[in-house]
Amino acid sequence: MYKVDLNCDMGESFGLYQMGNDEEIMPYITSANIACGFHAGDPHVMRRTVELAKKYGVGIGAHPGFPDLLGFGRRYMTCTPSEVKDYILYQVGALREFCAAEKVRIQHCKPHGALYMKAGEDKELARAILETMHRIDPEMIIFAMNQSEVIEEAIKMGVPFAREAYSDREHTETGSIILTRKGSEITDYDAMAQRVVRMVKEERVLTYDGKDAAIKADTICIHGDTPGAPKLAKKIVEALKENNIEVAPIHTIL
Amino acid sequence: MYKVDLNCDMGESFGLYQMGNDEEIMPYITSANIACGFHAGDPHVMRRTVELAKKYGVGIGAHPGFPDLLGFGRRYMTCTPSEVKDYILYQVGALREFCAAEKVRIQHCKPHGALYMKAGEDKELARAILETMHRIDPEMIIFAMNQSEVIEEAIKMGVPFAREAYSDREHTETGSIILTRKGSEITDYDAMAQRVVRMVKEERVLTYDGKDAAIKADTICIHGDTPGAPKLAKKIVEALKENNIEVAPIHTIL
Amino acid sequence: MYKVDLNCDMGESFGLYQMGNDEEIMPYITSANIACGFHAGDPHVMRRTVELAKKYGVGIGAHPGFPDLLGFGRRYMTCTPSEVKDYILYQVGALREFCAAEKVRIQHCKPHGALYMKAGEDKELARAILETMHRIDPEMIIFAMNQSEVIEEAIKMGVPFAREAYSDREHTETGSIILTRKGSEITDYDAMAQRVVRMVKEERVLTYDGKDAAIKADTICIHGDTPGAPKLAKKIVEALKENNIEVAPIHTIL
Amino acid sequence: MYKVDLNCDMGESFGLYQMGNDEEIMPYITSANIACGFHAGDPHVMRRTVELAKKYGVGIGAHPGFPDLLGFGRRYMTCTPSEVKDYILYQVGALREFCAAEKVRIQHCKPHGALYMKAGEDKELARAILETMHRIDPEMIIFAMNQSEVIEEAIKMGVPFAREAYSDREHTETGSIILTRKGSEITDYDAMAQRVVRMVKEERVLTYDGKDAAIKADTICIHGDTPGAPKLAKKIVEALKENNIEVAPIHTIL
Repeated sequence: MYKVDLNCDMGESFGLYQMGNDEEIMPYITSANIACGFHAGDPHVMRRTVELAKKYGVGIGAHPGFPDLLGFGRRYMTCTPSEVKDYILYQVGALREFCAAEKVRIQHCKPHGALYMKAGEDKELARAILETMHRIDPEMIIFAMNQSEVIEEAIKMGVPFAREAYSDREHTETGSIILTRKGSEITDYDAMAQRVVRMVKEERVLTYDGKDAAIKADTICIHGDTPGAPKLAKKIVEALKENNIEVAPIHTIL
Repeated sequence: MYKVDLNCDMGESFGLYQMGNDEEIMPYITSANIACGFHAGDPHVMRRTVELAKKYGVGIGAHPGFPDLLGFGRRYMTCTPSEVKDYILYQVGALREFCAAEKVRIQHCKPHGALYMKAGEDKELARAILETMHRIDPEMIIFAMNQSEVIEEAIKMGVPFAREAYSDREHTETGSIILTRKGSEITDYDAMAQRVVRMVKEERVLTYDGKDAAIKADTICIHGDTPGAPKLAKKIVEALKENNIEVAPIHTIL
Repeated sequence: MYKVDLNCDMGESFGLYQMGNDEEIMPYITSANIACGFHAGDPHVMRRTVELAKKYGVGIGAHPGFPDLLGFGRRYMTCTPSEVKDYILYQVGALREFCAAEKVRIQHCKPHGALYMKAGEDKELARAILETMHRIDPEMIIFAMNQSEVIEEAIKMGVPFAREAYSDREHTETGSIILTRKGSEITDYDAMAQRVVRMVKEERVLTYDGKDAAIKADTICIHGDTPGAPKLAKKIVEALKENNIEVAPIHTIL
Repeated sequence: MYKVDLNCDMGESFGLYQMGNDEEIMPYITSANIACGFHAGDPHVMRRTVELAKKYGVGIGAHPGFPDLLGFGRRYMTCTPSEVKDYILYQVGALREFCAAEKVRIQHCKPHGALYMKAGEDKELARAILETMHRIDPEMIIFAMNQSEVIEEAIKMGVPFAREAYSDREHTETGSIILTRKGSEITDYDAMAQRVVRMVKEERVLTYDGKDAAIKADTICIHGDTPGAPKLAKKIVEALKENNIEVAPIHTIL
């Protein structure tokens, strides 16, 4: 039987500022990437989000980013690998305490934004992230793009990994994400859900430029800021179930 | 035989900004209060400070503060008890990860600056701090002023506590700290060291206004920003030893 | 003929975080209190908000707050008057540069949140704010609560001032604002609009505890985070016009 | 007669954190680059630094940087030109208000750290900075590296500029700065002073790799964090005077 994990960035509100619809999306996903206070999130939001993930049995992931709240962690900063290691230890540790308070554990780690993108192509940065994770917990799973340096290094280092595909963004031939959506008004949720089904069952996807490419989708990403994200999540879950694909947290799949 | 712990705030540098002389003071103290990135400190500084404390066998304490780097955590902010709980979980968690990486544990918690002062007189805030610590680790020791609400509540809740006295600041009759130093040019380190000896052995101190008051000194605080702090620390350690007072981390004393 | 100014906090978004509906509310108000990057707002948001205010001929006000983005400036911080003076110079200066770029000037200053509330009862803080404003521009108008220390000191110092009344919050007998709304579901916009009309024409208001009190309303405040704020703004403007009350920027009224 | 300006970064302290020796260096320099609160500096520090510069008749410059206090603005962030424009308007505006309060004006602008370095090689970024400066004040002088994109664009746009040479860092053949010092223990202040004299009079410098290259030195930079910076500043001033080179603020030279 086919299995796939469904993940979404969560806990990205900050103080009075709301971001996303965590309460609406959480029931549909199986893994939550929880912001840790650097690019988004704050201690109160982290606690609430851990509680919410626990309530729905959703796998909890650390979602560390660059220290850039103003840019939401989407701007690359020329940090050294040593700086990145310390930033990840700090953020994961903060999240772990909220998890410990709720007696749940951290399942995975998904670097955020510019950190995720850069690690995909920068071997040294990829290793810095993986070494830190391995030091924290050798069973923690890294989420990464297909064919990225992160996957290559994770294989070498024996760090468990999950290859991501994207429900609401286009892919390149190597499985990289195209950050801007094709058309700002994506409303065809059914088509998106069917594309997800095909990525899981056939391990194929039509790329942004019309090619049919191979892809591995251990986990499917939904972006919380996609318009109608909760509706999209529901459609995807329904389409997966209709196709006898089990949706489950990544640690039960790998 | 008499025993006492010697503590100092550590790891309060930030980025390129240096604060204090951690490397010079660490050899003399037995407990280090390590800033956690809110009022001071950053991930890199935290890692180095944990390593340094480990090297000298110094007990590690979390030193959480208000989120006010500009004011160095010395300005009271009207945070709710719930906010304070989340801030402490976050900060302690971040520090715990650096400790876990070095296979050492957190021995104690000393709230910083305005958080320390306010908790001393505000029962609700004191309880918020103590409940959070108890949830994290029931063996974690709280550092607090003599006769403060923190001590009273810790007794009620069964949280282990250490009463602080101050080597380089004056006291009131109830053992509260007087924040401003009497004379900006304190150079009489011998007198300060002898005062420490008396606080430990006789449990008495001359107050800022010349009274002879009772005080308990489970742990003695040295302020890292006192001019000549490392020299003062050395003098105190020497004076304590000359008087057959053992200087040891607080968890070995209580 | 009666005249009144209608003001609203604006430009409180930050990075990717949206706050309020500036574009919808701006057409109805006559004075905009623009956040300056301490409690909310950022350089990009400030530029856009100044452009938007200019487009609608709305009077521009500086809206300085405490340096507390996480608490949205609603938490009092024990800053010294000297610190507050420097914070206001900094924030007003930053806003002035965006105004200069658009060839508009700053009309008024309305301290934000905890700074506004505390200045109302703290003479020293009130003077710190007024002295700073006077140094920047002697014609800059301060917005303040009826019967507050700010008004008293402004009178003594000759700083032009506008007394505020609140469209969507209750008042005390002295005209102070009650921060929490009576009923979380205020939907009776007509009643609120009529209350505004009465405050302007009769200079009377029913207080939160049912008394009929005197009030001066040089400017009426609408809170942008009140549910349906743009609709409320529209209702108020219509009601004022129906009652032959001119709505105009405060500098054209005083 | 030869003339040259001597500049140094100033006002880079933050809260309780001290950086540099502003009081000791200010008497020797003729232009001060004052941090504006993004990479360093805070409102209180800015006020004090403006007052100090005024006291010594030193030309005041804005020293805007990336919003990265943790990295001291030395890490490049992938900000858009539009973001950089708004960041500069904000920072310069804040500084202008402190200058206005002291009835002095801003003479020049020197971007800080990674912003300075990147603008030297990125035409679009260079133009973003120059356009913003020009909008603020067409007479404001930009400080930039010899042969940088900033100089090229400034010439095209008619923005007044000053070419910098470095007293305490090595140069490349094109006059670019080598950020790391050759030898961490530069103590030969006389040799450095003589090199400065030669750069001014002969417009030549020995590069880091031993070549004799052409250079223009309208202004000489001293780094405040160079060990013994005040002593170096004094030596340079003495050497310049001995060689009949007048040291004066840049606006009196160009």
